Amino acid sequence: MPNKARANLENLYRIFTVPEAPDSTLGAIDQAISDDVTGFLQTHIVAIERNLEEIEANFSSSAIPEEPTYVSEYTEFVKEHLVAQSVHTAAPGFVGHMTSALPYFMLPLARLMTALNQNLVKVETSKAFTPMERQVLAMLHHLVYRREDAFYPPWIHNSQAALGAFCSGGTIANVTALWVARNRLFAPEGAFRGIAREGLGRALKHHGIDGVAVLVSERGHYSFGKAADLLGIGQDQLIKVRTDANNRIDLKLLRQECRRLQDKNIRPLALVGIAGTTETGNVDPLEALADFALEIGCHFHVDAAWGGPTLFSDRYRHLLNGIERADSVTIDAHKQLYVPMGAGMVVFKDPTALSAIEHHAAYILRHGSKDLGSHTLEGSRPGMAMLVHAGLSIIGRKGYELLIDMGIERARTFADMIRQHPDFELTSVPELNILTYRYCPQAIQQTLAGATPELTARINALLDQVCQLLQKHQREAGKTFVSRTRLRTTRYGEGITVLRVVLANPLTTDEILTSVLAEECQIVQQPEIQALLQQVAEMGTAPGLTTG
Amino acid sequence: MPNKARANLENLYRIFTVPEAPDSTLGAIDQAISDDVTGFLQTHIVAIERNLEEIEANFSSSAIPEEPTYVSEYTEFVKEHLVAQSVHTAAPGFVGHMTSALPYFMLPLARLMTALNQNLVKVETSKAFTPMERQVLAMLHHLVYRREDAFYPPWIHNSQAALGAFCSGGTIANVTALWVARNRLFAPEGAFRGIAREGLGRALKHHGIDGVAVLVSERGHYSFGKAADLLGIGQDQLIKVRTDANNRIDLKLLRQECRRLQDKNIRPLALVGIAGTTETGNVDPLEALADFALEIGCHFHVDAAWGGPTLFSDRYRHLLNGIERADSVTIDAHKQLYVPMGAGMVVFKDPTALSAIEHHAAYILRHGSKDLGSHTLEGSRPGMAMLVHAGLSIIGRKGYELLIDMGIERARTFADMIRQHPDFELTSVPELNILTYRYCPQAIQQTLAGATPELTARINALLDQVCQLLQKHQREAGKTFVSRTRLRTTRYGEGITVLRVVLANPLTTDEILTSVLAEECQIVQQPEIQALLQQVAEMGTAPGLTTG
Repeated sequence: MPNKARANLENLYRIFTVPEAPDSTLGAIDQAISDDVTGFLQTHIVAIERNLEEIEANFSSSAIPEEPTYVSEYTEFVKEHLVAQSVHTAAPGFVGHMTSALPYFMLPLARLMTALNQNLVKVETSKAFTPMERQVLAMLHHLVYRREDAFYPPWIHNSQAALGAFCSGGTIANVTALWVARNRLFAPEGAFRGIAREGLGRALKHHGIDGVAVLVSERGHYSFGKAADLLGIGQDQLIKVRTDANNRIDLKLLRQECRRLQDKNIRPLALVGIAGTTETGNVDPLEALADFALEIGCHFHVDAAWGGPTLFSDRYRHLLNGIERADSVTIDAHKQLYVPMGAGMVVFKDPTALSAIEHHAAYILRHGSKDLGSHTLEGSRPGMAMLVHAGLSIIGRKGYELLIDMGIERARTFADMIRQHPDFELTSVPELNILTYRYCPQAIQQTLAGATPELTARINALLDQVCQLLQKHQREAGKTFVSRTRLRTTRYGEGITVLRVVLANPLTTDEILTSVLAEECQIVQQPEIQALLQQVAEMGTAPGLTTG
Repeated sequence: MPNKARANLENLYRIFTVPEAPDSTLGAIDQAISDDVTGFLQTHIVAIERNLEEIEANFSSSAIPEEPTYVSEYTEFVKEHLVAQSVHTAAPGFVGHMTSALPYFMLPLARLMTALNQNLVKVETSKAFTPMERQVLAMLHHLVYRREDAFYPPWIHNSQAALGAFCSGGTIANVTALWVARNRLFAPEGAFRGIAREGLGRALKHHGIDGVAVLVSERGHYSFGKAADLLGIGQDQLIKVRTDANNRIDLKLLRQECRRLQDKNIRPLALVGIAGTTETGNVDPLEALADFALEIGCHFHVDAAWGGPTLFSDRYRHLLNGIERADSVTIDAHKQLYVPMGAGMVVFKDPTALSAIEHHAAYILRHGSKDLGSHTLEGSRPGMAMLVHAGLSIIGRKGYELLIDMGIERARTFADMIRQHPDFELTSVPELNILTYRYCPQAIQQTLAGATPELTARINALLDQVCQLLQKHQREAGKTFVSRTRLRTTRYGEGITVLRVVLANPLTTDEILTSVLAEECQIVQQPEIQALLQQVAEMGTAPGLTTG
């Protein structure tokens, strides 16, 4: 073997056998994260946002490097160009999205998970991880359905059944739920061997219908759109029912939509209730939806990706009453179970429901095996369930209750701050720990109170621009972060742009929330925004446009 | 606040703010993994397999613990009941599945990824991770399609396009490819607004066809079965074409199947070529498949989840010739890119292909944004692309080439060992680094050489049992591990059970492979297996059953 090749080979063995030295660049980062992850993130992530195009310049080569690079050299690149330009999602002032701080124990446990590198698709590459994942699913099932203790032993480790499916996230969980619903509606029957075998075209023919529909409120997560497309249902048949003033599905309109479907010979496949809408955190009337699903005879799914853990709280659990009647429920662990990104779950009331999507293969997932891959959409998967297991065990029901209660109460406090502030308008009242608002100075609020629909629309269009600029500048400054969305509100009819706040980080204090509003009041002083507000002010005084 | 509640609250803040002390149980594990992960795994994973039912007893409660637990107490549980009973997938003697050792740098980088906890669904929660993931996809695109350098700049960071989709694994990658193929076949056209909007039922009507089909060899991965079900195509329309003696799709039979589909008014949606079948590692004739896909006018997908990285090798790249003509290609990073579990990718020749499954939402994934979630099946996702980026940068093209070449050459060495051993039968010749074989003593091989089909079937049925028991005992002993599957071979007609070996761990030596066979020769001495072999021996001497 030539010398060069031998040297390459030796280097290759080294990277598989010799750990990073503690004083190496990567070793030092590793130690810094172990010692104080908060400090590490604060020190290494640059607060002020750089232009995305500038960042892209560092990731612009499409060629795979020909020669190996030293780990230390690569680590320097990562520090400077990746870590520095990433988002401090754990910061207590980052209240715009659903990513929050992680409990400290998650980090060493996540590393243990990576080191073990188990593959949950089959027992042969996961052994104890398989029963552990099944236990986690049983625990979540128990949280949702509160079945008696005797219910679980026959099912929890039963190879013929599954209390739920572990997924990479809520989207796969929602897709799995609707997949099961679709396959159960079109189950084998007489000469028809079921949709899994024969496909959707023949399934529709067999039932003599022109389509199936999924009904969800207009606040439904975008994953239902993906699911409707993926499953062949079509997004036209994803019926987005309008919400009431509290962002909950309007039951009267729901009934109307169902009649319309009947006229078109389209059968309702699933009714989806939301427990914690992504944008406003509201909870649909789950009891009423359960009744209605029963009445029209369709699958009842609850998307509790966000709000599911509210069930930990003795005080607020009742908000989700009726969830125990759902055929399936999605809960994301990487949201309010405080697990790192990449962990969702869907549980099914009926432990045999998932057999509607069961798949087998000769080299794994054999019939009768306990391989989890036979009941999941995904194949090879990491042992993320371990981190959920750790959270449930270490934090416990009471710990999660405390987190949930704190979040909901902090949202109420923040809503009060907004209400009391003359220049902000609360655009959705928090039911859980999410709320929306917008900047709308007192004078404009008064103008709007007496404005014609036309003036209202013109003012709101300008306020939308204010909102958009405000959010952008705040994000770029990097001190605090809120997100934005567009909501149709009953007050204004059409959609308005609003700021959105999610309060799940236990380290977010009232002082930080005060500073969020203070910073926004500062930002709107910028000439660009003042010019927009000036335009609104002028509109208010123009003749013929106010009714007051 | 009562004292108890205050204490709970303080504990809760602690877990979010105070790292594990280095001398704590979890701190010590963390340090041990940093210092020497190989040693840690060897020390902590119990080799001898415990009964799964016994393990399940430790994961049998469905109740979420009410009270919090100390991290140290939980860690002891994890050590004893989870880690000890997991699978040492990185062991050089674990050659049965596709999980191998990881380069050392992956661990600290994976921890960095967890600590940053970015969410790749949107730029607002991932910033530099978004361009980095796009770069990784461009690099893989380049590896597959080898487009000129000037091709990439207009696409790599283009918000209207995507060179591929990052996924949790190969299953989602294959599903995404077929989803795109389906939606492109049923694109908007005249009054028909496309399948994404109108659904599969109306799409079929619009085209006046009774169904669509996916064609793949019988060695195709089980994910295609899931995809056919999920996408509404139906598994009956997943046409599993028989393979030739080299486990490659039989082109004549493929043509026949297509004619049969035509007679049934079913249109071929996609033709799938496999570059490295899961069970035998063979590569379909990709050039010929590309020609045929062109001829019948359907999407050409290549599942290179396993074999894709062969493209790194100057010596073996030619085995995949024709892959550059595929419309889409799946490559798993958690296989031969040596990244921890949970990283798959699919790249598309046409950078606008993924717009067929584009989805938007008001609060993220806005039109014109660079949010990756608009072009992926999954929603929230971790920053796994960073580990792929690290592998490509640190190991480099030449490092991966070395790994690939070593694996292929080791498989040839092992195949020779099997051929030369009188009591083993090589059941598939390795083309890449996967092979299959079975225990079949010399005398039985001779009997089989002259046996009638009936005798052959009876002998093989008994040898199947031998194979099954052998694999089970070997796994349970925990020294080395091979997997097993069932294969239809041209030699024996029907399926036989075989042992399967995957040689991707660079630490697997020839000595270990010798010991694998030696251990198997020992295991078959067990009375249970000897009794089966005795039965076969008696059959061979029974009159009228041999033709020789």
